Formats: sequence, C-alpha cells, structure tokens
Amino acid sequence: MPAQADITIPLDVPGEARETYLNGYRTMTHGTGRLMLFAGDQKVEHLNEDFSGEGISPDDADPEHLFRIADQARIGVFATQLGLIARYGSDYPDVPYLVKLNSKTNLVETAQRDPLSSELHHVRQAVDLRDRAGLKILGVGYTVYLGSDYEAVMLYQAAQIVHRAHQHGLLSVLWMYPRGRAVKDEKDPHLIAGAAGVAATLGADFAKVNPPKKGGSADASLLREATLAAGRTKVVCAGGATMDAAGFLQQLYDQIHSGGTAGNATGRNVHQRDLDEAVRLCNAISAITLDDAGVDEALKIYQGA
Amino acid sequence: MPAQADITIPLDVPGEARETYLNGYRTMTHGTGRLMLFAGDQKVEHLNEDFSGEGISPDDADPEHLFRIADQARIGVFATQLGLIARYGSDYPDVPYLVKLNSKTNLVETAQRDPLSSELHHVRQAVDLRDRAGLKILGVGYTVYLGSDYEAVMLYQAAQIVHRAHQHGLLSVLWMYPRGRAVKDEKDPHLIAGAAGVAATLGADFAKVNPPKKGGSADASLLREATLAAGRTKVVCAGGATMDAAGFLQQLYDQIHSGGTAGNATGRNVHQRDLDEAVRLCNAISAITLDDAGVDEALKIYQGA
Amino acid sequence: MPAQADITIPLDVPGEARETYLNGYRTMTHGTGRLMLFAGDQKVEHLNEDFSGEGISPDDADPEHLFRIADQARIGVFATQLGLIARYGSDYPDVPYLVKLNSKTNLVETAQRDPLSSELHHVRQAVDLRDRAGLKILGVGYTVYLGSDYEAVMLYQAAQIVHRAHQHGLLSVLWMYPRGRAVKDEKDPHLIAGAAGVAATLGADFAKVNPPKKGGSADASLLREATLAAGRTKVVCAGGATMDAAGFLQQLYDQIHSGGTAGNATGRNVHQRDLDEAVRLCNAISAITLDDAGVDEALKIYQGA
Amino acid sequence: MPAQADITIPLDVPGEARETYLNGYRTMTHGTGRLMLFAGDQKVEHLNEDFSGEGISPDDADPEHLFRIADQARIGVFATQLGLIARYGSDYPDVPYLVKLNSKTNLVETAQRDPLSSELHHVRQAVDLRDRAGLKILGVGYTVYLGSDYEAVMLYQAAQIVHRAHQHGLLSVLWMYPRGRAVKDEKDPHLIAGAAGVAATLGADFAKVNPPKKGGSADASLLREATLAAGRTKVVCAGGATMDAAGFLQQLYDQIHSGGTAGNATGRNVHQRDLDEAVRLCNAISAITLDDAGVDEALKIYQGA
Amino acid sequence: MPAQADITIPLDVPGEARETYLNGYRTMTHGTGRLMLFAGDQKVEHLNEDFSGEGISPDDADPEHLFRIADQARIGVFATQLGLIARYGSDYPDVPYLVKLNSKTNLVETAQRDPLSSELHHVRQAVDLRDRAGLKILGVGYTVYLGSDYEAVMLYQAAQIVHRAHQHGLLSVLWMYPRGRAVKDEKDPHLIAGAAGVAATLGADFAKVNPPKKGGSADASLLREATLAAGRTKVVCAGGATMDAAGFLQQLYDQIHSGGTAGNATGRNVHQRDLDEAVRLCNAISAITLDDAGVDEALKIYQGA
Repeated sequence: MPAQADITIPLDVPGEARETYLNGYRTMTHGTGRLMLFAGDQKVEHLNEDFSGEGISPDDADPEHLFRIADQARIGVFATQLGLIARYGSDYPDVPYLVKLNSKTNLVETAQRDPLSSELHHVRQAVDLRDRAGLKILGVGYTVYLGSDYEAVMLYQAAQIVHRAHQHGLLSVLWMYPRGRAVKDEKDPHLIAGAAGVAATLGADFAKVNPPKKGGSADASLLREATLAAGRTKVVCAGGATMDAAGFLQQLYDQIHSGGTAGNATGRNVHQRDLDEAVRLCNAISAITLDDAGVDEALKIYQGA
Repeated sequence: MPAQADITIPLDVPGEARETYLNGYRTMTHGTGRLMLFAGDQKVEHLNEDFSGEGISPDDADPEHLFRIADQARIGVFATQLGLIARYGSDYPDVPYLVKLNSKTNLVETAQRDPLSSELHHVRQAVDLRDRAGLKILGVGYTVYLGSDYEAVMLYQAAQIVHRAHQHGLLSVLWMYPRGRAVKDEKDPHLIAGAAGVAATLGADFAKVNPPKKGGSADASLLREATLAAGRTKVVCAGGATMDAAGFLQQLYDQIHSGGTAGNATGRNVHQRDLDEAVRLCNAISAITLDDAGVDEALKIYQGA
Repeated sequence: MPAQADITIPLDVPGEARETYLNGYRTMTHGTGRLMLFAGDQKVEHLNEDFSGEGISPDDADPEHLFRIADQARIGVFATQLGLIARYGSDYPDVPYLVKLNSKTNLVETAQRDPLSSELHHVRQAVDLRDRAGLKILGVGYTVYLGSDYEAVMLYQAAQIVHRAHQHGLLSVLWMYPRGRAVKDEKDPHLIAGAAGVAATLGADFAKVNPPKKGGSADASLLREATLAAGRTKVVCAGGATMDAAGFLQQLYDQIHSGGTAGNATGRNVHQRDLDEAVRLCNAISAITLDDAGVDEALKIYQGA
Repeated sequence: MPAQADITIPLDVPGEARETYLNGYRTMTHGTGRLMLFAGDQKVEHLNEDFSGEGISPDDADPEHLFRIADQARIGVFATQLGLIARYGSDYPDVPYLVKLNSKTNLVETAQRDPLSSELHHVRQAVDLRDRAGLKILGVGYTVYLGSDYEAVMLYQAAQIVHRAHQHGLLSVLWMYPRGRAVKDEKDPHLIAGAAGVAATLGADFAKVNPPKKGGSADASLLREATLAAGRTKVVCAGGATMDAAGFLQQLYDQIHSGGTAGNATGRNVHQRDLDEAVRLCNAISAITLDDAGVDEALKIYQGA
Repeated sequence: MPAQADITIPLDVPGEARETYLNGYRTMTHGTGRLMLFAGDQKVEHLNEDFSGEGISPDDADPEHLFRIADQARIGVFATQLGLIARYGSDYPDVPYLVKLNSKTNLVETAQRDPLSSELHHVRQAVDLRDRAGLKILGVGYTVYLGSDYEAVMLYQAAQIVHRAHQHGLLSVLWMYPRGRAVKDEKDPHLIAGAAGVAATLGADFAKVNPPKKGGSADASLLREATLAAGRTKVVCAGGATMDAAGFLQQLYDQIHSGGTAGNATGRNVHQRDLDEAVRLCNAISAITLDDAGVDEALKIYQGA
C-alpha cells in the first residue's frame, strides 16, 4: 500500500475551503495520494464511436452504463460533463464526481484546423450543483491542447479554472495534450514532460498525459521525466483504446512503479465491457493504484476470483 | 396511449423551480413524455422560401398564420423567435411557447463558410417575457452545428442555455445538426446517434435530429442507436420538407415505434397548408404522438372525419 | 387619410413603459401608423460623397443643414448618430429623433470583405440622452446585412437593441439589407421579403428595405410579398439616390398603395436640396404618407403652391 | 485675436459635469476656441525613430524632454499615454494633459495587415488620475483608421470614449486617418472631409486630420470642405515630419485662415529640437493659433527676439 | 555601491498603496534601484527543454529547484507563474515573488503564426495571494511581442496590468520583445530602444529587453539608447542561454556600467546549475548589481571563495 498521502494544500485555496479541499483530495485518492479516474467524457470527444460497434458491449449504448459502473465499482472519481451529472445524479448520489468543463467533438481534424476545446460550464456552476443539489462533486477537469493555434485561449481558461476550483475547495485535473500542426510527435517523452510541467505552472492538482513513446515503444520509464517535471502536481496516464486486461494492468503497474505516476485515467477500457466485467476491471485497477497490489493479484480481482 | 411519463427532474433545476419545470414538462408533453413540437423558426432559417411560392397556401404569407395554427390545433409547444412572440402573444395568450434562441439565414452556404448560429436573445429575456407578460413560455431552443469550425461557440452557448433554462424551470430543446466541411454525411446513423449523445451531455431535455439514412434509405429503426445514446434526453425527429400526409404520418409512427423517438418537430409540413388543413394535420400528428393512435386513425383525423 | 393606427404594443415593453411607447408611436406616425423617416446617417455611411459635389446644394456641406430641415419640415422622425444629436440637440429641442446605433463607411467594398456594421452606442445611452437632456428621442435604428460573413454579430445586436429599446418604451427600426459575397441579387423581391420577415422575428417595429426589382424594373407591387411577410412589423422603403421630385413622389405613392408599405425613409433626396426646397419636399412626402394625399396634391406642396 | 469662443456644450455632458467641460474647453483653447495640441504619443506610434537619429536633438532621447517642453512652453494641451503621465506628472503638475487612449507601433505595415489601434486605457482610468492625483487632465484622444478591416472596432471604441469622456466633463480629440488596403489616397480632400464628418457623428470635440493634397499639392484651402463637414466639431491639422520653422508657421497660418481649421497638433516638429528652440517654436505656434498673430510676428517669437 | 535609489512613485498608485509600492520597490532592489530578477517562467515558455538534457544539472528536473535557489540565494525577486507559487509558497514564505501573468509555449513558431501570449491570471488574483496567503508578492510581469499581428491584445493587457498593479501597490515588469513576421531584426538597437520606450508609455517600472546587437556584436554600449528612451522606467537585460560564469558576469557588469541598465533578469544561466553553484552565481550577480562589485570580486563569490 502506498504511504499515506502527504497533502500540501495550495495557497490559492482560501482558509474556509481548506477542509473541503483536503477531504476531497482524501476521498478522490482514498487517502493514498493516488488517483483512479474513471473517464466518461467521450460522448462528446468521440461521439458514439466508443459506445456502439464491434467489440463493444451493448450495455455501453446507454449513458446510464457509465453511472452504474461508477456506482458499483471502487473508483477514485468519475469524470463526465455537467449535463449528464445533473440528469442522473439523483439516482447515483454516492458517486464521487469530477465535472469535465470543456469538450469538443472529433469531427474537425487537426489537418483541417487546430483543436479548440472551450469551456462548456463554469466552475461556479459545478459548485452550485455540489452545494445546492448535494452531489459529491470533488473536482473539475479541463483539456489543454498545447501547440494549437488556440493555445492561448485554453491556457487562460485552464489557469482560471484551476484557480477558481481552489477557491471553492475543488480539485483540478488538466488533460495535457500537445496537438496541432506545430506538433510533430505528440508522444515525444520530452514534450510530454513539458506538458506535465505546464500543468504544474497552472496550479493543477493532477495532470493527465498520454503515455510517451520513443521509437514506437512505450516503456513506462519514459514517464519519469514527466513525473519529475510536474513536481507536486501528480501525473496520471490516459488509458487509451481498449486492450486486453492483463496487458492493461501490467502497463498501469509499470507506469506507477517505473514511471512514477500517481495512477491513471481510464475510459473506453472500462465502459466498453459489460457492467459486471467493467466493475471487476475497475476494482483491479484500484487494487494496483490504491493498494499497491501486484499484477497477478489484480488479475484475480478482474477474473472475479 | 403511452404510459404516464416518469419525469426525472435534472439537479440543475433548483428547488424553487422544480414545480415550474414539472408543470412545463407535463404541459408540453400532455402528460405523456412525448412531444409534438410545432416548429416556426423558418422565417430566419429559410427566409421567405417556406412561406411564399408554388404549392404553399397563401395563408402562410402572413406570420400570424403560425399563431393561428398554434392556437387552434392540439400541439405540444410552438417554437419561434422571441420577437414574434412578443408581437403576437397578447392575442394568443393560451399558446404554449418555446423561444428559439438562435437562428441564421441560409444565405451563406457551407461551401463558403462553416455555419455559425449565435444567440439572439438570452434565457433571462425569455424568462422575463414569461414572468412579466404572463405568457405560457415553457421552454427554449437552440441549434448546434456539430463539426462546424464554430462548434466551440455553439457548444458553449447550448450548455449555458440548457443550464440557465433549468435554473428558471424552463425546458430545453437542442436542434443537433452535424454540418460543416468536416462532415461528409450529415444523415449517417452513427453520427446522428453521436449528436443525440452530445445533447445528453449538455443536459438537454429534448434533442431534435434529422432522420438518419443508410444507403439513401431512412428506415426508422436506424434511429434506435440515437435514442439509446441520448439516454434520458428524449429524441424528436425533424419533419423536413412538405410531403403527403399519409406518408408523413406513417413515418412519424415508425419513428416512435421502431425508432424509439418521443415525437417530432414539424414546421413546413404543417404551416404550408391552409389553416384548416394545418390544424387537422397537427391533430393527426398529436393523435399518434400523444394517444398512440395508429396511422389509419390519424389519417381520419387529418381528413376531418 | 389613413385610418387611425391600431397599435399593438409588443409584450417586451414593460408596463411602466407602455405609455411612452404608445406616445412615441403616435408621434412618429402622426397617429396614422405610417412613417416618414428622414434619414441622416450618411456622414458615416457615404462619408462626404452625399454632402458635397455636383448637383448638391452648398447648404448640405454643413451638418446643421440636416437639423434645420428636421426642425422646419413636417417629418415623422429624424435618424442620425448620437454624437450629432448630442452636439446640435440643444438648439433643436423639438425635433423627433431616432438614434442610429450602428454605421460603417463605404471604404471597404463587399468584394474585399463582407460588411460588418457594429454598434457605436448602446440603447441605454440613447435613453440617457432622452431622460437627462430631455430630447424627444423616440426610437433607435440599426442596420443588418443579411448574408454577410458577420451576419451573426448583427443579428444578435439587432435582436438585443430591439428588445432593450422596448424595455425603455423606444421604437425600433431595422435597416434590412441582404449583402455579402453570398448574395447574388440584393433587390430580389423574394429575398427582400425574407429580410422583412427577419425583422419581424427580431421584433422590430419598422423594417426599412430597398425597393425590390425584377428584371431591372421596380414595380411597387413587388413589395407586396415583403409587407405580408413582415406581418405586424411595418415596412418602409429606402429612398435611394436623388431623383426628380415628381418621380420620387409617384414612387412613394405606389409603394404605399400597391406595395402596402407604411411609408419611406428618405435621406439624399431631401438633404441634397437647399433648405427651402428640402422642407417642401419633406412636406410633400408627408402629405402622401400621413394624409393619403395624391401625387398631384403633393407636387403642389413641393412646388410651394 | 480670434473672437471669444462660443462654446456649445454637447448634451451628453451631464449637468454636474458641465462646468468641468466648459473650464476644460476654455483652458485647452485659452478661451479662443482654437487648439494648440502638443502631440507626444510617438514613442509607441514610431518607436524610437522620432527620438534618436540624425537631425534630432540629443535632448529628445529622454522622454522627460516632452514634459519639459509642455511645462515651459505656451501650449493648449499635451497629449501622451497614461503611463508616462502617471510617471512624470508629479514633477509637472501644471501641464494641461490629454490622455491618448490608443496607440500601435509602426512595425506591421498596411501592406501586411490593415491597422488596428486598440484601447490601452479606459476613460475611467484617465478620470481617476485627474480626480485622485489632481492632475490637470482635460481630455482624451483616440485614433480611428477609417477603411481598415478593423474599422468597426475603432468606430465603436471612439464613440464610447467620446461619450464617456463627456460624462466626466473631459474633452475628446479624434485622430481621423483613412488607412488600409481599401484606401487608395489617404490625402484626398473629399475623403479627409468625410473623415472629419465621421468625427462629428461620433461627437468628438476636435478632429485631427492630415493636411489634404490634390495632385501632390497641399493648398490649405483644400481643408475648407473638411472644416465645413465637421460642423461644430473643430478640425486641427497634423503637423507631420520636421520641416523648417518658417514654412511650418506659414502652413499653420494658411490652414487656419484659408482652411478654416481651429489649430494644429504638432509633435516631431517641436520635440526634435532642443528644449529652448522647442519652447520658442511652441510659443510661435500659439501666437498664430491663439492670438491671430501673423507669420512674421510668430517667426520673431521663434527666433527669440 | 550604487546611490540610494531615488524612487518616484507613479501617480496611478493611490495614496493608500504608496507605502506598499515603496516598500516593494526597496525590497526588490535592496534599496539600490537596481534589480536582480531570477526568471523562472520557462516551464511554459520553453517546456522541459531548459530543465532536462545535456549540460543541465539533474537538480533542475524538479520545479522545487527554482524555489530552493530563490530561497537560499540573494536575489531581488523570483518570477514565475501563479500556479507554482501557490503550490510551493507555503514552504518558501520568505522568497520575494513576482507573478508572471502571461506565458506561451514555443511550439508554434513565428514562421507559422505570429506570437500571442495572453493573460493566465489577473492582477487581482496575485493580490489575493499576497493579501490572503501572506506571501511576499511584490510585483507582476507580462510579455509584449511588439510587431506581432496580436500586438493590440498584448499592449492592452500590458497597460491594464501595469495600471492595476499600481492600484494595489505592486510593481510591474514588462518583457518587451519585438517579434513577428514584420520584425526583421529582433536585436536591432534602435528597435530595442523603441521597445523600452513603449514600456515607459505603458507605465512599467522595469522593462526587460534582450541585449541589442549590431553586425552580430553585442557591445553593451548599444544599450545606451534604450536606457535613455525608457526614461524613469528602468531597463534590465535578459540573461539568455547558459554561458560560462566569467563571461556572463562581465557582460552584466558592462550592461550596467556602459549600457546604463539597472540589472538583469536571469533564468537558465542560474537554474541549469546544481543548487550550490546556482546560489553562488546568484550571489555573484547580486554583488555586481546591488553592491557595484567588480567582475573579479563577483567571480570569487561565484567560486565560493
């Protein structure tokens, strides 16, 4: 099991919000400082491609599937758009939520126009949902496309979102993705380390990055530069497209133990499975992330042993 | 007759607005959860093309025609721009209104520039008209062109409009249209399902989509993916250009019963007919939508039997 | 003489402003519902081209000429920019004013860039000038270039201006001009009817349009489609470049009596004449517009009989 | 000596600010209605080109040179950016200041991109400096590039700045420069008259224009059209690049007496000389402008007789 | 030792903030008017290129390295982004901070698109961190790319940031960099003098410029034009890429003593060394800057003598 997290509360969290921030941090990380983020923002990002098609469980066709998983599995936090949380939250009041504040579709490709993902909702609206509706909203998320022609818009919105989240005791997770015609290799370890470092300057609590690759290979130790560059901002890896569970869990284990990450953010790998399997995979991920379980032990959980 | 609607009030509707929202939902859907939306926003969208020309009743030349239909027919809600509602509302106080908050003309084609339809009025102004003038304004509407270069602007405005509508107990309907040079096939069922899913993430109560087509054919069962993807957000189909009543009613019946939609949104098919015929067609549509009538029964209503 | 105007106060005029609106409407239309608008916004729109040159009275070189005409002639309202009204208003306190809120120069041609005419002043500033300085400011005006790449900006500003004007009991006149590289024929009767219809959806009290032409000819009956499409929004025709008085008055007569317009908006045709003649022409126009005089009777007035 | 100025206070100056406006007008024009504006905004507009180089006094290398001239010479008002005024104002409390609210550098040429000069400071900030620091801030200035692709931005900011200046009893001077790829001849007398007329519609107290030229020659009588078109807005001429004093004073004399201008705005011609000579030239300019002195008399003042 | 600084408080510092400004100025300059700015904003500006790679101390991989240097060395002020300050500030409460308010990455090159570096945080947020968290935040910084297509945005934000900083008693440092396709030679002495002059017009307390070069050579006396042009705004030179300490200290000495600068702003030259060496280099820089030490004396400090 990882050591108790030693949480440094950033100074833009005002006195009256420190307890909220601290409790949120402990809840999201189960007291470990590590994060198992269940990412469910793809209904905008990938439209219906992740939810219906070959190899995808029919359970995934209905957005409630995401809430059922988040409700039944052991997760750190479930990230999705405010509209869905508002619609399903009353039936899933115990889920720990993170409001993903921006999203774009994948229709316009980078070759046509550099990516811009702009705010959909404001931090204040997430706070209202927490305070008025009593949902367990613990944090907010935002994607920054570094190197896009619209980088300045996103850097500004990200900085403001982190700051305002802290004002209200919410945690912040930044999806840091270099992308645009100026970006030659999105997976370059040096560049991903740079992106993680930018998240730190913006004050993010967690930075989500893609696993870096060098010469086509994704050795987890390539993450070391990024986890160092991020300093006290914790790095979690994106889970990517669906792959077999054993490989996925080994990758996660390596990212934490050789890459120095604080967990991962997984979406498709979880929700494209049927409810029962998805829950077991979440629990296996959480065992590695939160309990320092080994891959074999996690695989047993996944296999329902 | 469809089962009584089981309405889940979204959590961004605050306590003091829940009754208003619930009443609005029941009124708009006649307690059924199904929606017969009479769409009258074409005076901007299509200029005068829908209102004057061959095959169009001379009644349609005057915008008051729309109000007369909405007043005399059995409809769920009449959607048009705020300026018209303010001008005619005092003479038609019993009509249930939905304020269409954005509109663009069809002059600039997608080949020239990707579509941008921006807010004309704010939710607050629709609320004022409801609260001060005492009109039965039950909801607001907004069009999103997914895949446009201006997608980010419209996603933001849509998200905010849904949220603010809910704050005041208003319902929200999003017109979800993939359009732009990045969109190869606007009618692709997978893409339309994606668009319906986006409406759900934005918190919309209803998503209006075009009937999907595969290989040129518009089998209503192609809608199934979209109605699933939208989850608790209900899907209604756009009525499209004028066609013969029998075909139109059969299509509606199929959309509901094999596509799983919650009704449709019809404009030209209704208002391009003279007042009497338009009223009868509305009533026929409502019979199918709200009473689960069959096509034959509806046709009799249309024929004034 | 036209029948007493039957004025429907739009519902976005709040209770406390209804009397102001009604009085303004009656004053501007001399109780007839018809409008003689003296347009004096060309110092921006056409720079000095309309005010100095061959065939233009030397009186017109000085902007005060406009105020002298407005003061001495029988007009409905004098439309010009706020800066001029603020500068000359204290000497012409009895003139009924309409503040033209946007303007652009004619330097950038459509071939170079689609037209954008943006707000110069806010409704609130026109209201201040009315309420603090005690001027007879009765309305506001705004130009919309439908079909321009910047259409969305102008539709938004127009909708907001109409709404805010009504909030304060002011009337609104929209100059509706299709223009931009997407617009093939600015004078097409169908298109102009569409433009008039858009003004109605925006809630305008009056829409100013150019006289439509078909095959090069401007038969006034071509306006019928537009005056129908505008519904309760009244249509007035732009006066255009200077022409001989008899032809001009005949054209106005036809626009009202075969086109169904509620008057016209004349600028150059008036102010490019010397003061005395300009006043007589205004009075002739008003006789046709407000008194249902015939062309001969009006010509006598113009000739100072 | 010119007649006592007959000042018409524009009606957007509210009652409580009328005295301030009137005093400002009298101070800036020494009670004559004529303006000697000492223009010192070139450190942005021309970078260091006007302050260091061949034929420029070494005095001019230090920005304090501008303040020393303004302090020791007889001027109407000294126009420069707020940052400089805030930095040097405590040592030069008696100088009458005009805050130039926008500026751009000359790095991007019109051939590359049409000019945009945007607000640096707001009127309110100039007012604060007047009211809190007690400086003699009498007015604000702003440049409009008519015919630029960004004309709409500048027309809006200009209109708002004039209006807000008046709200606080400040005077407004607009630099009216036609410029952009749409502008074929920036010095065309008809175009410059148009520009002066636009300043009038925006409510400016003074319009600064470049001396018009026809066929390469700058006969001062070419200004007549502009001074007429501007009406009650007074026209002052830009001084342009450094030239010999005699020629410069003759030109000023002619601009006033045949062109009908109310003075000029001089920068480089003054500050590129050493302090003593600059002061004498200012005094000579003021003699012509404020005392109706002849050129010979003014030259004597310049020569220190 | 340089003379006691004779500080002129700019007039946009209101009475209640004068003491704060004065104390901040004295603290930042150690009472000398000279500034040793330790620049640590490169985690955005250069991503991870400055922090990991050949010739860079492994200490530099962790952002806390910057804080350790700032804490242990004798510096004037440590400039970095607000997010980092908020995260580490509680452990480094004695460091004098300057919040760098804008930053951009180096991914998009000027050849692709002119640079735009937009605000990340507002002055008010820096003030909050000072007042609520009790950090020693003494100033704010902002980069302006003169000659960029986006110059107008940055000039506006810079002017506003300086003004608002002064309102709260904070100092302001502007990074003045000519850059964009319109800029042929970024190091041209005349252009750099212009840039320094612009900083003065914006009211900056310090302008950071790159060392000018003429014909490839960077003689410190080339700075003289800039330090004159900036007037009471002090000029500090950017340190640039890492070079040997002796050369670096000689360059600094010359910049101060022949160029007339008030110090320098050094980043990479300091933090790419291990902690001990970085601290010694800072102290050597400070000896030259703050104590008027000679190069030999400074070198001894650097060598730990």
